[in-house]
Amino acid sequence: MKKTFLLASLLSIGAMATNPLIKQANDAGLKPLPKSEAEMLKLVDNSKNHITKAKVELGKKLYFDPRLSKSGLISCNTCHNLALGGVDGVEVAIGHKWTANPHHLNSPTVYNSVFNQKQFWDGRSPDLEDQAQGPIQATPEMAAPKALVVGRINSIPQYVSEFQATYGKDVKIDFKTIADTIAIFERILVTPSRYDAFLSGDENKLSKEEQEGLKLFIDKGCIACHTGVALGGGMQLFDANKKYKYRDVGDFKGDKNGMVKVPTLRNIEETAPYFHNGKIWSLKEAVQEMGTTQLSMKISDSDANKIVTFLKSLTGKKPNVQYPILPASTEKTAKPDVK
Amino acid sequence: MKKTFLLASLLSIGAMATNPLIKQANDAGLKPLPKSEAEMLKLVDNSKNHITKAKVELGKKLYFDPRLSKSGLISCNTCHNLALGGVDGVEVAIGHKWTANPHHLNSPTVYNSVFNQKQFWDGRSPDLEDQAQGPIQATPEMAAPKALVVGRINSIPQYVSEFQATYGKDVKIDFKTIADTIAIFERILVTPSRYDAFLSGDENKLSKEEQEGLKLFIDKGCIACHTGVALGGGMQLFDANKKYKYRDVGDFKGDKNGMVKVPTLRNIEETAPYFHNGKIWSLKEAVQEMGTTQLSMKISDSDANKIVTFLKSLTGKKPNVQYPILPASTEKTAKPDVK
Repeated sequence: MKKTFLLASLLSIGAMATNPLIKQANDAGLKPLPKSEAEMLKLVDNSKNHITKAKVELGKKLYFDPRLSKSGLISCNTCHNLALGGVDGVEVAIGHKWTANPHHLNSPTVYNSVFNQKQFWDGRSPDLEDQAQGPIQATPEMAAPKALVVGRINSIPQYVSEFQATYGKDVKIDFKTIADTIAIFERILVTPSRYDAFLSGDENKLSKEEQEGLKLFIDKGCIACHTGVALGGGMQLFDANKKYKYRDVGDFKGDKNGMVKVPTLRNIEETAPYFHNGKIWSLKEAVQEMGTTQLSMKISDSDANKIVTFLKSLTGKKPNVQYPILPASTEKTAKPDVK
Repeated sequence: MKKTFLLASLLSIGAMATNPLIKQANDAGLKPLPKSEAEMLKLVDNSKNHITKAKVELGKKLYFDPRLSKSGLISCNTCHNLALGGVDGVEVAIGHKWTANPHHLNSPTVYNSVFNQKQFWDGRSPDLEDQAQGPIQATPEMAAPKALVVGRINSIPQYVSEFQATYGKDVKIDFKTIADTIAIFERILVTPSRYDAFLSGDENKLSKEEQEGLKLFIDKGCIACHTGVALGGGMQLFDANKKYKYRDVGDFKGDKNGMVKVPTLRNIEETAPYFHNGKIWSLKEAVQEMGTTQLSMKISDSDANKIVTFLKSLTGKKPNVQYPILPASTEKTAKPDVK
């Protein structure tokens, strides 16, 4: 037995890990990100539109291109800023003409959003390809009609030739293709952390305090919603107990069945303010609020602090992103309209 | 003579170049960017605050950090977007609460701005270090009082330790140090192009048409203002002939002596719309407008087209910029204020 222990410890083999918390976490439904790039790619791929390097590069350009908005000033990255945990850091999303989201909704992170089972707070979109079409067109966000976006891209010869190099000479650069390409870039935005190494069997990767937090996280039932590879991403009944402190801020009440998307907890340290309406700025307060609202329990200061310590171990390594140089507009490109 | 010609051609030695246009251009005051990195660094350095790798990296983070604005939504890069030729591509700069610049002024490019003899359209600022302090505080731009910016940065431990690693343990992270660090990043944003290789003696780097355009550019007198390494960057009497087509758009009339900053022509293809008030979108029209306004001559369509062909050779290679991952805010960080 001692021999096996040493071997497992030396080789970091998950299956042999003796730390019971690793087994408990895996049994509870928590899943690490794959270690190998090939496995990771398989996990995040789109079977109808496979990931390629060319699509990722082109999708990155589109993701950062503010000319996809009516004003020419707002890109996907404005609200889902890759420098800031994939969010904008403000309570409510601010879009075209400085319009706040009319439902008082907070921008969710783009990092690891590929693992969401549904997209948007009310889960109305099945995947990133579909989701990417929304904010571009939404009047309080990028406010660009499909024809404007398609016209702008097609007016820029370098974009046209990049689409052709990516999808073939006969590609029709329509709105769907543009959104699909953005989604391919978003699919690769995953962020492995020490937590994944721990879950895969490397028991030294989380400190004693972080492990205590993880155990509390499981034991208290947080994993009922914050589960799987994303620690979230599914749908859950919104505020069934009608206890949420800021329930009356904004008119969001979930989908038609009262269900709301459970946010991923990866990089949660970086994505304040919290909840659909961005009303809570402190991670500890957010943990305690979830205790009251969803678990009908008071989480003590001491336990909340430990859970927060664990949650911070979910801050992951971001993919390297070279800031793109975008192809210049031409005289045929529809002018920005800030009105 | 033939031997010398061959040698010059093979070795690309500027001094020996036989193409008379190269000599004419150099004699006319046009200057190439240095070829070697060491010479380039020397040219763009700040003798009072030398460029170091650490300052560039930290300055880049600050340049991209929207938390330097009151709202938390606007960074230096919002109006001086490195993906889009260093500009925002809109007629008039749009800032805090979607406010248009009250003087109807267009955002100038940050690329090669280190070569401007003065900063801002009215040249009121001597250098980038001084300039960087302006837009952060200006109400219609980033709208952040000094204390807010200083407080936010000092509330983020990772920023504090990066300033300490950059400037020493005793660094006082005040507003000036923050702006100075941003300026150091901006100093390295220079963009060598084929034009520089040509001016340095490699006569094959510009096509016959581009060379014709360059000759016209010199012969017609454009070089009176668009000279030196930046092809601009000095001060010139604004619209002395009172012929500018859009003279009445905005209240800008230059500095107290009626002088206006001459924009660099490097990357001009990427920085439409043109002029201080962004009223002209076509580069050809801009060339012809300058003929009328500043040179009191009509530039024919044919000549303007050739000059434009030359101007496009000024589109340079941008420095590789890895998009930064910014340190997370803490609970002590002053909240964004979008009001």
